[in-house]
Amino acid sequence: MKEIEFTWPKGFYADGLHSGLRKKKLDLGWLCSQVPASAAGVYTTNQFCAAPTALTKQTIEQGHQLQALVVNSAVANSFTGAQGEVDAQTEQELVAAKLGISPKLVGVASTGVIGEFLPMAKLKAGINALKLTANHKITEAILTTDTHPKTISFEFEQAGQKCVMTGFCKGSGMIHPKMATMLGFVVTDAKVDGKLLQELLSDQVATSFNQITVDGDTSTNDMVVTMANGLAVADSESLTKDSQDYQEFKQVFQAVLEYLAKEIARDGEGASKLVEVLVKGAASKRDANVAAKAVVGSNLVKAALFGQDVNWGRIISALGQTDVSIAVTKLDLAINQVAILKASQKQAYDEEGLQASLGQDQILIEVDLHTGQACGRAWGCDLTYKYVQINASYRS
Amino acid sequence: MKEIEFTWPKGFYADGLHSGLRKKKLDLGWLCSQVPASAAGVYTTNQFCAAPTALTKQTIEQGHQLQALVVNSAVANSFTGAQGEVDAQTEQELVAAKLGISPKLVGVASTGVIGEFLPMAKLKAGINALKLTANHKITEAILTTDTHPKTISFEFEQAGQKCVMTGFCKGSGMIHPKMATMLGFVVTDAKVDGKLLQELLSDQVATSFNQITVDGDTSTNDMVVTMANGLAVADSESLTKDSQDYQEFKQVFQAVLEYLAKEIARDGEGASKLVEVLVKGAASKRDANVAAKAVVGSNLVKAALFGQDVNWGRIISALGQTDVSIAVTKLDLAINQVAILKASQKQAYDEEGLQASLGQDQILIEVDLHTGQACGRAWGCDLTYKYVQINASYRS
Repeated sequence: MKEIEFTWPKGFYADGLHSGLRKKKLDLGWLCSQVPASAAGVYTTNQFCAAPTALTKQTIEQGHQLQALVVNSAVANSFTGAQGEVDAQTEQELVAAKLGISPKLVGVASTGVIGEFLPMAKLKAGINALKLTANHKITEAILTTDTHPKTISFEFEQAGQKCVMTGFCKGSGMIHPKMATMLGFVVTDAKVDGKLLQELLSDQVATSFNQITVDGDTSTNDMVVTMANGLAVADSESLTKDSQDYQEFKQVFQAVLEYLAKEIARDGEGASKLVEVLVKGAASKRDANVAAKAVVGSNLVKAALFGQDVNWGRIISALGQTDVSIAVTKLDLAINQVAILKASQKQAYDEEGLQASLGQDQILIEVDLHTGQACGRAWGCDLTYKYVQINASYRS
Repeated sequence: MKEIEFTWPKGFYADGLHSGLRKKKLDLGWLCSQVPASAAGVYTTNQFCAAPTALTKQTIEQGHQLQALVVNSAVANSFTGAQGEVDAQTEQELVAAKLGISPKLVGVASTGVIGEFLPMAKLKAGINALKLTANHKITEAILTTDTHPKTISFEFEQAGQKCVMTGFCKGSGMIHPKMATMLGFVVTDAKVDGKLLQELLSDQVATSFNQITVDGDTSTNDMVVTMANGLAVADSESLTKDSQDYQEFKQVFQAVLEYLAKEIARDGEGASKLVEVLVKGAASKRDANVAAKAVVGSNLVKAALFGQDVNWGRIISALGQTDVSIAVTKLDLAINQVAILKASQKQAYDEEGLQASLGQDQILIEVDLHTGQACGRAWGCDLTYKYVQINASYRS
């Protein structure tokens, strides 16, 4: 596998445009495959699951196939009741009619303000104007408070043929995924069965998207959807679990999901730096993940990192308030590879040097709990004035 | 019962001074009873329970009696290992020796930065200089980022005698109590058995201190301690559960705890307003409390309230991400008594008027879940630039 310049896999077409939902920015896009693709998805666990999210879940679960996805920003079509459901279905039907395919092959995603209805006349005109192109405008059209598109492409092999896997996503606030998150899309021209794809996605989301947090709030519209159309290896069999190719596919998939998840954390609302927490020596994988996410999710830790303050007591406090098994007298803690604690004893370190290193745009916090062998990581960002500014006036 | 000007109950003496732990502000205080008092406490559930908190818990659990409490700010004596334990015991012994009482009657509390040792020479000199006075300096000496002391006194009757109950507390950041919180002290000259006092405190903390949040972080030093010396009713029996006086005592106790809890939320770091969330129609008391705390704890809701933005979708999202039983199509929501949703339908309301009302220093959010009869409340504050400022430079 190797990373390549962003590109659509074989047989995938996309487009994005300004349909009038936002003032000026692109706000509508689609992504289409030449043929029906194997598909899998993971979705928000928020009880108020939005209409498009629920519809896409239902659509994918029917046959684990999709041929097109339509996505808008600005209006989330969330908490919009029966009208919201009708609107999402209408989007699905409009796209299906335009492409001459079954509505059961069309996914729908929305992101933006909760509680407002989609302006359907604008959306209808927008869908009408979408084309089957190779441009990357959809990666812009799905953004809200994000500062830039988040995209990645890898090249790898299946059955000796070159395949491409491409992922893109949006998300900057209301980020604290429980089973899936915000909007993430991964497409490939490799050939893999829909149910296997689902198994892989569900598994890998747990250690990528589910391990990031910006503000502790789980959105109503979260979804990650993946499509594999097999066009790069048209004459070959689908991947099977015991094959060498499957191992590479899995590696590529994990790299794409982890890259996208980290990009969301790095671009968290108002963030000035990416924070990675690595927990080692945990009693279980679950413990390691919970501990890592607790540290990266603490407002106090985040504000201290913004202020370049080596206030490591807040890391201790964040760990201690979890139910994770901790050897309280054996803890190791390092920040940017400087040892702060060994066996719970404070080490001598160059405070000024460490403080300066907290000015970098990436921070690494390492914790060893000394209660087992499991590891886990989580990603987040610092808490800045800008986060407050963005969220005190989100709708203006 | 009636609220009176802040005063110490009969037989309680206190003092506060500057011992040099902070630059200029008062940083050390004590509170003493003329005779041993019944005592009860609740303590942090953070796994890294600080040395003074653990020692006070152990001391109170031995006999449910205390005669004195010594408290310092600036240094939390938390995550300080064996040395921290020795230091807390030394404080206990110094106070006991000075008062000529058993160390087993002395509670110790600390608040401030985690991971630093207490400067014992300064503390020793400070304890030496403390006097048995009627001043209120201890209510100042325990503060950290608080903007003002939080105090209250009530007068009530037991056995026909006038009694006083007085409470004070500190706390502004790292506020997300799980079983107890920050430092809270309630003293009375009523007569009540220590175990009954403990039962009452544990019960009432659940709906007062445990229902506030400033930033989702549970401190390592939280404790609420209460002492009843019985001196107002020296010749009477202790309160019994079936008496009329007990009902009044309970009412006063609850009023004091709730007042102090709300004062902490109102004075949350950087806060410009107090936010109260009232959840009705819940399937259980637990559900009501969890739902109320989820709304008041959401960074997104808090930032919107700071910005006077009626972004009610964030309230929905915060509710939906809990495991609380919700009738998703029947939800009622009101903000400052303006109906926003009825049966999950958006109501017509005066947006500008409501927006203006969010400029007040107190916000009320009411939710009816329509799944049962239980109610719960929670208190918090808005998220402001000042919160970030305070926590980006806490130690400077």
